Amino acid sequence: MSTTASNMDDSDPAPIDFRIHPDRYRHWRISTSSPIAELVMSVDPAGAMFDGYELKLNSYDIGVDIELYDAIQRLRFEHPEVKTVILTSDNVGMFCAGANIRMLGGAAHDHKVNFCKFTNETRNAIEDASQFSGQRYLAAINGTAAGGGYELALATDYIILMDDGNAAVSLPEVPLLAVLPGTGGLTRLVDKRKVRRDLADVFCTLEEGMKGPRAVEWRLVDETVPRSKMEGRVQVRAGEMAQSSDRPEDAAGIELTALERHYEGDEIHYPFVTVKLDRQRRNVEIIIKGPDSEAPADMAEVLGLGVEFWPLALLRALDDALLHLRFNEATLGTLIFKTVGDPDRVEAFDRFMHLHRNHWLMREIWLYAKRTFKRLDVTSRTTFALVEPGSCFVGFLAEPLFAVDRSYMLDGQFEGDARAAPQIRLTASSFGPLPMSNDLTRLETRFLGEPENFEKARLLIGQSLDARAALEAGLLTFAPDDIDWEDEIRLLLEERASFSPDALTGMEANLRFAGPETMETKIFGRLTAWQNWIFQRPNAVGEQGALRCYGTGQRPEYDKKRV
Amino acid sequence: MSTTASNMDDSDPAPIDFRIHPDRYRHWRISTSSPIAELVMSVDPAGAMFDGYELKLNSYDIGVDIELYDAIQRLRFEHPEVKTVILTSDNVGMFCAGANIRMLGGAAHDHKVNFCKFTNETRNAIEDASQFSGQRYLAAINGTAAGGGYELALATDYIILMDDGNAAVSLPEVPLLAVLPGTGGLTRLVDKRKVRRDLADVFCTLEEGMKGPRAVEWRLVDETVPRSKMEGRVQVRAGEMAQSSDRPEDAAGIELTALERHYEGDEIHYPFVTVKLDRQRRNVEIIIKGPDSEAPADMAEVLGLGVEFWPLALLRALDDALLHLRFNEATLGTLIFKTVGDPDRVEAFDRFMHLHRNHWLMREIWLYAKRTFKRLDVTSRTTFALVEPGSCFVGFLAEPLFAVDRSYMLDGQFEGDARAAPQIRLTASSFGPLPMSNDLTRLETRFLGEPENFEKARLLIGQSLDARAALEAGLLTFAPDDIDWEDEIRLLLEERASFSPDALTGMEANLRFAGPETMETKIFGRLTAWQNWIFQRPNAVGEQGALRCYGTGQRPEYDKKRV
Repeated sequence: MSTTASNMDDSDPAPIDFRIHPDRYRHWRISTSSPIAELVMSVDPAGAMFDGYELKLNSYDIGVDIELYDAIQRLRFEHPEVKTVILTSDNVGMFCAGANIRMLGGAAHDHKVNFCKFTNETRNAIEDASQFSGQRYLAAINGTAAGGGYELALATDYIILMDDGNAAVSLPEVPLLAVLPGTGGLTRLVDKRKVRRDLADVFCTLEEGMKGPRAVEWRLVDETVPRSKMEGRVQVRAGEMAQSSDRPEDAAGIELTALERHYEGDEIHYPFVTVKLDRQRRNVEIIIKGPDSEAPADMAEVLGLGVEFWPLALLRALDDALLHLRFNEATLGTLIFKTVGDPDRVEAFDRFMHLHRNHWLMREIWLYAKRTFKRLDVTSRTTFALVEPGSCFVGFLAEPLFAVDRSYMLDGQFEGDARAAPQIRLTASSFGPLPMSNDLTRLETRFLGEPENFEKARLLIGQSLDARAALEAGLLTFAPDDIDWEDEIRLLLEERASFSPDALTGMEANLRFAGPETMETKIFGRLTAWQNWIFQRPNAVGEQGALRCYGTGQRPEYDKKRV
Repeated sequence: MSTTASNMDDSDPAPIDFRIHPDRYRHWRISTSSPIAELVMSVDPAGAMFDGYELKLNSYDIGVDIELYDAIQRLRFEHPEVKTVILTSDNVGMFCAGANIRMLGGAAHDHKVNFCKFTNETRNAIEDASQFSGQRYLAAINGTAAGGGYELALATDYIILMDDGNAAVSLPEVPLLAVLPGTGGLTRLVDKRKVRRDLADVFCTLEEGMKGPRAVEWRLVDETVPRSKMEGRVQVRAGEMAQSSDRPEDAAGIELTALERHYEGDEIHYPFVTVKLDRQRRNVEIIIKGPDSEAPADMAEVLGLGVEFWPLALLRALDDALLHLRFNEATLGTLIFKTVGDPDRVEAFDRFMHLHRNHWLMREIWLYAKRTFKRLDVTSRTTFALVEPGSCFVGFLAEPLFAVDRSYMLDGQFEGDARAAPQIRLTASSFGPLPMSNDLTRLETRFLGEPENFEKARLLIGQSLDARAALEAGLLTFAPDDIDWEDEIRLLLEERASFSPDALTGMEANLRFAGPETMETKIFGRLTAWQNWIFQRPNAVGEQGALRCYGTGQRPEYDKKRV
């Protein structure tokens, strides 16, 4: 296995690194011309993340998608002036061939699953930018968009397909590869673009896909344009789309400088986040630190701080830590969240963030917080939170308490520890700006069965709650005292580590998302679960399965049993 | 493999037969004392459907659930006077231990998947009776309800748990068996009973489950009652529940006599339904025949006809055919629906059914039609409908057109065939009484992207639509003419049979349920898909997996990788 050569110091053992910079992109180009940016896919066939395959025909692997994720983040933070992003390709004839099939054929099951999850999150981030950030996406399909290529386009607001007798959109996974379009395609076809289900069935079994007027009629694309008029039409449409944006005309962005990350043995140190890996017990402590300074006076100060602004710094660290753990530490099954810091300072930052929530940068920080906590929700690891003396689960930093599978808070002090008993504090952060994928806040979801407790929780805003008060309010799972704490937590972690990781994955995926379902929850629930199943089935991944046979000239052989 | 010995003549090769009668029950007892019925689980350990396991501790296999399904159907049709059904057990100490683990450990993947689907449908039928039929269910848990045993109780309206220091409710699948509670338990916990997700996490990892006041506090059961007061309290509560029912006091039910089914080579003949198996091409024609008489004059005539009333006769046949094909013909991947008959007669029956829809029996027939078409929706086979001369896709019999993955209608006549070009006819049946699991009608789901076509379709009620009119209205997928018909259908079936059955299963499960999600769609989508995945994973089903090791004294060994 080769790795992305760049950006790794010798002490960093992570085979897959999510930290990247446009200077080191091998697969994408960003150019901006206010108010429009172009994001051009131009995959380097020799730039695969692993050995054994070439990224032909603008196909992608995790390395290509890491760059895409980085580009989308930068467009939001570094380019407040960009209101429309044109997503296109410089590969003549092939806009994007989707996920690389050789890579999928050779990858381990857990990599495939995490690859699909990350690519889904990145496409959701495109829709998040469109819907909430005033930065809309336009797909200019100037060749064939096949499989994941078309799914990428489906994540944009508007799809223009070149009408040159060649360019087409297709989802050929089922007929060619015996897997599903795994990046939301099926869901977005029938739920976002509302393609009629029988037409969707036809389309999803057509290897060659569709082009021309019928692609518009079936709502697969928004319009088709002859080659000669393509560039002009794309610019006009991008300009129209920019008009409704509320992003500022003349603001300067903040630079997403390289994220610091240092290893010390089994600890990973980021600014404001420390990750402690316990390989023997197969768990991870994620310790989030409170601010080391007072809250800023105004947004000018925040713009000056840039990525050093405490909430942004910790979100970047937490985001990277979650991705790192998913891809590079598959056997560490339990994530334990802790916080350390001054609750009053956290609350002051939280108050400042609400006060300035309409500033373009603060809006981006809130949206990034939302996406990061959603990433936590769909991470297939057990998640616990431990509230101990010295902690600062306050405001938006209380959110992990409601994202995790269980939360434990010490009732009182530790013997021989002078620190006060821990407290938690709710703010408006838990009541709106950080919804889950089901579009409810975590407290709404938590209290579906006891809406009176949801209303009571609102009345507790601003109060310092000790363990008994928090337990009484339904905000905790358990509140052991000093006598029980150590044993209870130890037994909890041992027991969890003894369970089947797969059964836990399935259980958590079903318990975490009560209430309404959305396109996002459908993608992470129904679609992802079916794809994972197919990724285990011999018809796809067996010796004679379609993923293995593709490109070899051999025909796959299928077990013809339906289930 | 042994089979249910009863009810099979020598010409019937179906290993699993869904036709049963209380006289031949081995596992359940029904007794009625108006307005209350008791349905008592009393599993015969020696009555397993297959060799290799005993049904100890009131555990169940498909044979036990076939009886349960039969009992639920009979209570609705044969007992209009029953308003509350008490679901209980005569096994001292063990209400029900859930699905038999040895059976699960030994069964083929496709049997496990279909077993779970059928058991889910049966539990949904309990909720359907409660919600729509005025026949409510009360679980009287007089022992431990473990796993599927507790899930059965979760499907009822009200759960009373005996408080004797022993009886408990539990979902021990994750810690003990490395699989999920597969019959809706996780979904019903957080979505129906709205158990808080962190408490649900605790409960689902407690092997011994919960009892006493905390089970009530956590909303796992509705009340606990001491042993000495159990029987009295159950009767009182059952009586209270009966009071709100609108079922008639003094009506006589109709008997669900044995369903006729005869094999002739590769054809299965039912009253009004013929099933033609094409093993070489791996598809099945399901031909539904129109009525052979005029519509009845009044409900007295219907009560006299009983199961010979045409709509009920065909629904029973269709229901049995779908179940038979799922369990006994796994390699026949495509179901082709056709109808034959007089459209005017079908419309007359349809009109009669609407006119009398508030009569208790007609309500049951409508609800049975709804459940049967839902069973079609979630059958993991490709489904097509072919509309040819002589057909009668009219009223509720037009519903298969909108349930299938694609529909094809001949535009015009066949050369040399004197029969008129086919027509279809919509009635109110497509606009309300037959919702899908997502609570929308099939036409609402179909036209999510073009609500104007939904409204236009309503204006077409009563009109005879030829292929062009139906295509124009969006009611068909394609309308080939005589010249293309044969080739197009042949190629369609050949192509479909060439695809991976698993990929089709996943694709169809994602395309069929656009729009809102409900508890039912969550169970069949998210929960089922995850369980199917787990049923493929070595941690559950491998040589060292938990399902294989259970009861052997061996500890399962888990691959500790998370995905």
